[in-house]
Amino acid sequence: MQFEAYLRQTIRQGDLTVRLPNGATLRLGDGQGPPIVAAIAKMTTVARIAARPSLAFGEAYMDGDVVLEQGDIYGLLDLLGQNFKNRPRSKRAGRLARMWWDLRQDMNGRAAARRNVHHHYDLSVDLYRRFLDEDLQYSCAYFARPDMSLEEAQAAKKRHLAAKLLLSPGQSLLDIGCGWGGLGLTMAQDHGVMVQGVTLATEQLALAQARAAERGLEDRARFSLTDYRDVAGPFDRIVSVGMFEHVGRPNFQEYFDTVARLLTDDGVAVIHSIGRSEGPNTTQPWVAKYIFPGGYIPALSEVLPAIERAGLIVTDVEILRLHYAETLRHWRERFAAARAEIARLYDERFCRMWEFYLAASEISFRHSGHMVFQLQLAKRIDTVPLTRDYIGPAEQAAVSARAGRRVA
Amino acid sequence: MQFEAYLRQTIRQGDLTVRLPNGATLRLGDGQGPPIVAAIAKMTTVARIAARPSLAFGEAYMDGDVVLEQGDIYGLLDLLGQNFKNRPRSKRAGRLARMWWDLRQDMNGRAAARRNVHHHYDLSVDLYRRFLDEDLQYSCAYFARPDMSLEEAQAAKKRHLAAKLLLSPGQSLLDIGCGWGGLGLTMAQDHGVMVQGVTLATEQLALAQARAAERGLEDRARFSLTDYRDVAGPFDRIVSVGMFEHVGRPNFQEYFDTVARLLTDDGVAVIHSIGRSEGPNTTQPWVAKYIFPGGYIPALSEVLPAIERAGLIVTDVEILRLHYAETLRHWRERFAAARAEIARLYDERFCRMWEFYLAASEISFRHSGHMVFQLQLAKRIDTVPLTRDYIGPAEQAAVSARAGRRVA
Repeated sequence: MQFEAYLRQTIRQGDLTVRLPNGATLRLGDGQGPPIVAAIAKMTTVARIAARPSLAFGEAYMDGDVVLEQGDIYGLLDLLGQNFKNRPRSKRAGRLARMWWDLRQDMNGRAAARRNVHHHYDLSVDLYRRFLDEDLQYSCAYFARPDMSLEEAQAAKKRHLAAKLLLSPGQSLLDIGCGWGGLGLTMAQDHGVMVQGVTLATEQLALAQARAAERGLEDRARFSLTDYRDVAGPFDRIVSVGMFEHVGRPNFQEYFDTVARLLTDDGVAVIHSIGRSEGPNTTQPWVAKYIFPGGYIPALSEVLPAIERAGLIVTDVEILRLHYAETLRHWRERFAAARAEIARLYDERFCRMWEFYLAASEISFRHSGHMVFQLQLAKRIDTVPLTRDYIGPAEQAAVSARAGRRVA
Repeated sequence: MQFEAYLRQTIRQGDLTVRLPNGATLRLGDGQGPPIVAAIAKMTTVARIAARPSLAFGEAYMDGDVVLEQGDIYGLLDLLGQNFKNRPRSKRAGRLARMWWDLRQDMNGRAAARRNVHHHYDLSVDLYRRFLDEDLQYSCAYFARPDMSLEEAQAAKKRHLAAKLLLSPGQSLLDIGCGWGGLGLTMAQDHGVMVQGVTLATEQLALAQARAAERGLEDRARFSLTDYRDVAGPFDRIVSVGMFEHVGRPNFQEYFDTVARLLTDDGVAVIHSIGRSEGPNTTQPWVAKYIFPGGYIPALSEVLPAIERAGLIVTDVEILRLHYAETLRHWRERFAAARAEIARLYDERFCRMWEFYLAASEISFRHSGHMVFQLQLAKRIDTVPLTRDYIGPAEQAAVSARAGRRVA
């Protein structure tokens, strides 16, 4: 059958056994690496996967129609990722496919954006507490040293962002997509800035506000349920972490025009977003359907025209490679450890969906050219220091200041 | 007259007096800042400048038809730059103008490229010795500290590039656009790599080879008169400083395809080029005619699509703002100090042309959004360290190693 031929042609590395519903057993790869055995029980599942693997494989795993008898979904996706990585780069979506995606994403208006955010970020915080760090940083950590724990690396990420934002006490800071408030609260507490955080997720907002109250920071860190396009500025500083991925390509210009409008003339913005190195593409269909409706992972080439047209100056671009893979590995391991509890909160299918999502995301950073970029933007050419040498000392100072407060 | 009205409307800052051929004297600006008095002797000059200021003003200055009776050309261009900076950004060239430029630049084939390079870089090295640093670095220096001398900042630039190239002894390094060989010789001498430098300028080649022989580095630093498109690879490392500005937009893809072809799978390339922050535009007409035929200053948005299509991964983008303005200030001051000698080598008109070029270039970095980008590129996601923290220590190590050799 065609599907078998396709698998044999594609899977050249690793040790994969596929047991098919007709009783046939395919042994694929070169036999190197951990053995993985996947069983598919129904011919309809095989047909669906063969017709549209990018959507149907994830669905089949969620539905329990692909069962791993040996190894786990991460191991299987890792094996697939390794094999696909070496294929010639013919997979780039054509212009037509991208237009279709643009049409869909054009609907990231205010109402749709709220729906799309609600879909993922208003899941119970009890879920996120099971696998995120203690501060609930739901974005790529910064492993300043490879041996850092997830907690340390998320703290390092916040310091790294603070350093690039060139914060000083009393400045106003807008946090676009503030999540559960962890970043804004740290900026208010450790750097003395006045934070306004906006989110479209009601669950996130409630917790952010509660945490601000808990720490006595209500006056310095205010959070609200506001579309970033409706915020009134200006702000000395703008930070946006893990939000740009949800903007969608047709709205890039509006996003950066808004940043430009909200930023003071001597302001600095830092945008932290997942990106893809291989150029424009479409969103992975399974991810778009089940995890991030409206989302789009941009290539740098798609982001820069909008920045330039907005009249913003790019003052630095850091490319964080593999940091998100490491972050996701931590999340995946914590998720696995808490799986029984999460299955009680939700159900088995939900757990499989999330396992697939976390594993597939990690693989995309290891093998499919996904990375994170941190764009530092300004309006004036002389706002940011002439060299990047201020970043390290600013991070060090933040460590010392926090240690000092602990002692005091 | 219309020209007067235009000047009055545009020049709001500074202290500028224009004496016109009809005896009229225009006092322009707010009277703040150093007074500048420019005299135009002929009505034909006024008409030409009014019709096409971007070309005719530079020509009039070269030809002695605009004479500065008080102040100098830098002061005048600075004043103009300050005033133009605050105008709304309506100056971006339209699509049609850019197509016209592309057509012209499409002719940067091998023969045209050689002609274009010859026009500027085969001027006598006696000229360049008068205003460059001792190593003849004819590109933006890196002022790691603001108080650095030009010599120190050019040495710091080479260390900065070497650090980002992650050099280790025995590696092969291709230097595309090697100039008089200074960078390649430093890389060979201080980092033990095997350098191949290519240039299209015969004068540059001769000096680069002579310097290699002088230092006994002929075996480790070879230079040749070769179009980079004709080089056979692969190389562990590729560096290209101040050359990409001459490639021309229609050839960007060929440039990065060539870099990708010439780079080993675990290779690293660093491309250092002037860029513009405001997005696509055309080359300044006077500069294109008199200084850099075939040249084009790219926006990042124009460069990234070609990189992505070439299959290269952007691993870092540093934006050097104002470093080139400072570099040009040093060159301009040295040029002024050596003006009498240079006038003997060439003539008065040549001196005025170069004064205009150096001053206008400096102003473009101070007021018109020009900057320098250093793009670090790789083929694999794990070739470059996970954080940028290796750069500083590598620079320090290079300083110490050189100091060690001096003592020994």
